[in-house]
Amino acid sequence: MQQLPSTVLISEVGPRDGLQSVQAVMATPAKLQWIDALHAAGLREIEVASFVPARLLPQMADAAEVVRHALTLPGLTVMALVPNLRGARAALEAGVHKITLPVSASEAHSLANVRKTREQMLDEVRAIVALRDEIAPAVKVEAGISTAFGCTIQGEVREDDVVRLAAQVIAAGADESGLSDTTGMANPAQVRRLFTRVRAEIGERAGAAHMHNTRGLGLANCLAAYDAGVRTFDASLGGLGGCPYAPGASGNVVTEDLVFMFEAMGVRTGVDLERLLAAREPLRAGLPGEPVYGMVAEAGLPKGWRQGAGAAA
Amino acid sequence: MQQLPSTVLISEVGPRDGLQSVQAVMATPAKLQWIDALHAAGLREIEVASFVPARLLPQMADAAEVVRHALTLPGLTVMALVPNLRGARAALEAGVHKITLPVSASEAHSLANVRKTREQMLDEVRAIVALRDEIAPAVKVEAGISTAFGCTIQGEVREDDVVRLAAQVIAAGADESGLSDTTGMANPAQVRRLFTRVRAEIGERAGAAHMHNTRGLGLANCLAAYDAGVRTFDASLGGLGGCPYAPGASGNVVTEDLVFMFEAMGVRTGVDLERLLAAREPLRAGLPGEPVYGMVAEAGLPKGWRQGAGAAA
Repeated sequence: MQQLPSTVLISEVGPRDGLQSVQAVMATPAKLQWIDALHAAGLREIEVASFVPARLLPQMADAAEVVRHALTLPGLTVMALVPNLRGARAALEAGVHKITLPVSASEAHSLANVRKTREQMLDEVRAIVALRDEIAPAVKVEAGISTAFGCTIQGEVREDDVVRLAAQVIAAGADESGLSDTTGMANPAQVRRLFTRVRAEIGERAGAAHMHNTRGLGLANCLAAYDAGVRTFDASLGGLGGCPYAPGASGNVVTEDLVFMFEAMGVRTGVDLERLLAAREPLRAGLPGEPVYGMVAEAGLPKGWRQGAGAAA
Repeated sequence: MQQLPSTVLISEVGPRDGLQSVQAVMATPAKLQWIDALHAAGLREIEVASFVPARLLPQMADAAEVVRHALTLPGLTVMALVPNLRGARAALEAGVHKITLPVSASEAHSLANVRKTREQMLDEVRAIVALRDEIAPAVKVEAGISTAFGCTIQGEVREDDVVRLAAQVIAAGADESGLSDTTGMANPAQVRRLFTRVRAEIGERAGAAHMHNTRGLGLANCLAAYDAGVRTFDASLGGLGGCPYAPGASGNVVTEDLVFMFEAMGVRTGVDLERLLAAREPLRAGLPGEPVYGMVAEAGLPKGWRQGAGAAA
């Protein structure tokens, strides 16, 4: 029987990945209230915005203002997604603690998504790291490998390609590299195998597991990543950004369900589950009519549930 | 990296657990068509009925007829649930290959559910085994431990109680004993721990994992059981018998999603996933208006999916 280590970091991506995937634009004050509620629940890393042109993603037009507010929350790592050097500059100037740049393992997806080859994306990593070194040396740079488990355009993605790319982004200067199941195609055996290989290659620089629940395997894949040594997990409150239980959905893993799984296992998340469930209210209020998902929220906590009572092996 | 063994047995419980949990009564010809389709998909163990008084469960009034038909399907293990000796006699007389008797690890649940203590249920196991020895010695008797991971009446169920009860039902003559998450309260660490302990106690007589998806952990718990050496998994086509994604639901693990997980991992189920998805049609036809769930059915198979192509480690 394995010994369960004590803690994992849940990285909330709802205010970025979630909000940019829905049609409606959440008003800035509502966003700030929601982020406050996420922080109050104990979340200590939140991807609060994406630095992209407002004409492309009006949902993210207030990125700098959101970052400014998030920086006032004690103990919070304020994270933002950037698609390129230009976005990185804006994020660094706004004062984020950490930026994340998606680099696709699928050449076809990379070209379709950012109109750059993987090689060109490695140049982008180098340029971003150089800029970071120059203007904000304390900021962490993550390069997340997207389509790491399969691609809806090219189908299979070779595991060797993923492992090599993770090593290349680190060699290009990124501080860490996680793996994203962008397309909801991962399975637990593949997740264990790939994270094990990536960790063998880049060690503790292996970053977050970003899993989707497209085919119902989201939590099983997180469990598999945990088994392979991963300790940071992306998730989205209420599964925001596509129904995690429905067709064609992006379907981020639901933060509440993920926290429940770990806490029930006796693995500490630092997140108070009741407060986390309460953070669904400002989300609903800020996005009227948008569905908010989650199995734990619907079924309720089990009889006799006491947070922190989960028995570690 | 662990080496993945080649096969698991998916035990379909929809025609029993599923049908007895919905209000509507499926007509016998529709049931037989549905069971044919499940068999045609490659399922080789199906719990086809429950032998209980028809006034209590009109859905199961045709149990003997359904068993008679199922016995004509080549290679199929025909299984039935029995709540007591009287039901066991009816099932044995109908000619089933295997009977399963639920024995609750929670004394409170046992009294509420069958108005018997756990001790009295052990007497029932002995009586059923004696009857089996007398009139149908080739039939297998399973005593599944229900509420093994928690109880909605008494809350926590002591793991020692579960392990002891599993050993006791085997000592009472049962051929195997599985563990059921009747209440949807299990977590992966607990599943690994408990199946590991039960297997240490009764070895290969440890039977199926019967998991629910009440709080979204169904597949993660099946993965955990697999890791602990379990090779038989109960599941219900379309999650029949309570929405696996909704409030208060019994929420059996969805067969299609479970088969997808294992096949994607390179673990063989013997089940053809496309045919399994096709078996949803006779289910729908036989139960008009009843919701049929499943993430794989909704999202579709991934691009490039080839059954049997999953790479074992």
